[in-house]
Amino acid sequence: DPALQAHTGYDPRYRSLGVFSSRTGAAGQIMAVDEAVKATNCEILTIELPRDTKGWGGHGNYIVLGSESVSDVRRAIEISLELTNVNAGELYISQAGHLEFAYSARAGAALAQAFDVPYGQPFGFICGSPAAIGLVIADTAVKASHVEIVKYMTPNIGTSHSNEVIIAVTGDASSVKEAVITARETGLQLLNSMGSIAESPTGIPYL
Amino acid sequence: DPALQAHTGYDPRYRSLGVFSSRTGAAGQIMAVDEAVKATNCEILTIELPRDTKGWGGHGNYIVLGSESVSDVRRAIEISLELTNVNAGELYISQAGHLEFAYSARAGAALAQAFDVPYGQPFGFICGSPAAIGLVIADTAVKASHVEIVKYMTPNIGTSHSNEVIIAVTGDASSVKEAVITARETGLQLLNSMGSIAESPTGIPYL
Amino acid sequence: DPALQAHTGYDPRYRSLGVFSSRTGAAGQIMAVDEAVKATNCEILTIELPRDTKGWGGHGNYIVLGSESVSDVRRAIEISLELTNVNAGELYISQAGHLEFAYSARAGAALAQAFDVPYGQPFGFICGSPAAIGLVIADTAVKASHVEIVKYMTPNIGTSHSNEVIIAVTGDASSVKEAVITARETGLQLLNSMGSIAESPTGIPYL
Repeated sequence: DPALQAHTGYDPRYRSLGVFSSRTGAAGQIMAVDEAVKATNCEILTIELPRDTKGWGGHGNYIVLGSESVSDVRRAIEISLELTNVNAGELYISQAGHLEFAYSARAGAALAQAFDVPYGQPFGFICGSPAAIGLVIADTAVKASHVEIVKYMTPNIGTSHSNEVIIAVTGDASSVKEAVITARETGLQLLNSMGSIAESPTGIPYL
Repeated sequence: DPALQAHTGYDPRYRSLGVFSSRTGAAGQIMAVDEAVKATNCEILTIELPRDTKGWGGHGNYIVLGSESVSDVRRAIEISLELTNVNAGELYISQAGHLEFAYSARAGAALAQAFDVPYGQPFGFICGSPAAIGLVIADTAVKASHVEIVKYMTPNIGTSHSNEVIIAVTGDASSVKEAVITARETGLQLLNSMGSIAESPTGIPYL
Repeated sequence: DPALQAHTGYDPRYRSLGVFSSRTGAAGQIMAVDEAVKATNCEILTIELPRDTKGWGGHGNYIVLGSESVSDVRRAIEISLELTNVNAGELYISQAGHLEFAYSARAGAALAQAFDVPYGQPFGFICGSPAAIGLVIADTAVKASHVEIVKYMTPNIGTSHSNEVIIAVTGDASSVKEAVITARETGLQLLNSMGSIAESPTGIPYL
């Protein structure tokens, strides 16, 4: 509707909007939308991260896509849903907290907008909750691997007051991947030492 | 206490304060307080929306009323509690998210302050969580009915990072009511299609 | 890592960082760290309060300490963990909300930074959720006892949108303690009248 569009501030040229949101997760969904936008004629209009996760310490997500074509938007949402499921393999949740990891060989518009990674470059995402775990695994990762930090987020910086420390990194593809895998190894050890075993919703890691 | 009053910034003329808050809900409580203030000699001092809802994706509420008379404040709180229970009939919660609707034929001070609806005018409130549902039902409602959007809220705009899109609308009474009812119909269909049936705490819709 | 340190903004002179965070609680942890910093050669680098508490209406915490010595940082974290457990005796949780109280005869760097209490002075902390309870017990406490309010926090002021009203007070030691104990008495009565009995995680009050 035009009146609503005026309030949203979205360019009226995008006659079709695709809306994507869930209560739990952020990086996995943004990664998924990133690929969906690459594969269709859609633009990212907004990426917002509510403080949610159904009682966990992290974010939910709210992403709006725009296109001049209904079918492009529909296809983008389909791709996003499929890939979100794949990406959930790198989300690990225990009673004590959670970890999320992501890697993309080539960041598109969504990752560039959300995490300041240069368009087309490798992207690594490292997130831990409670926040202390996030800082420790971020430190371990950047010590182990030659990568550049492009975004640094804490409860007060860049998050919606979530209980997380997050870094996004770039660099050459193998170093970025190595940083993420190192962080995952350390993070799972730490989180599992806090009393309960962290599990991913799908049980299928993609890294 | 005067020292506390100085910190709150409330006008010292209001010798009696009424405080109203709960962990879950916002529009229903603000509507209730709106009627309570109309019926008593009280003023709205603050309306704040913590990010709460006991693990759901929405708000709690914290509303402070002031009056020169203890009995007016007491009566206002009694009315607010009664009406909150009535209004809870238009809150719908499922495992996937929640919806909240409200309608008032004549907005008073609380609705004017919280949602920018002109004093004395019809007021409609449409809220959906996760946020994507909120945007879709807002769009459906304003397409179906000739109303004016007076407030537009998202995880990053106007909410406390809740996982909601919210609109407040005004216009002629029947159009506003129709917009809200259309949103409710679409919202329940969408939310119920996400795997579990949405239910209201009271089971008694008032619209 | 130096690259991460540049992003954090922490003084590179602190070669060792201690990180402390949990999903639930704030004052108890800050009090604990306050004592730990007094007892070791560490500095407070950041105190951040995510909106967390595992579904309750309050905060979690994320505190970073710095030192030139690894052993000092390690000792500070050990002390913090021990004292957090002691302080948890003044946290009371029910189905309806929670209360937290704290008292220190002599505020150190952590309390000064987090709650604006003058360094070396007595410190009292009074917190209630839902926010209405917080305001009522704050008012009761400052009426009952001659103390000065040094910090006032609400869902929109100074918190991370938690559903709490919080005051920090100073004054002479016995008055501050009395204010906190009065607030606790009133708060437990109120919270217990809301349908379920509030309990502390340890069952051992220290005040």
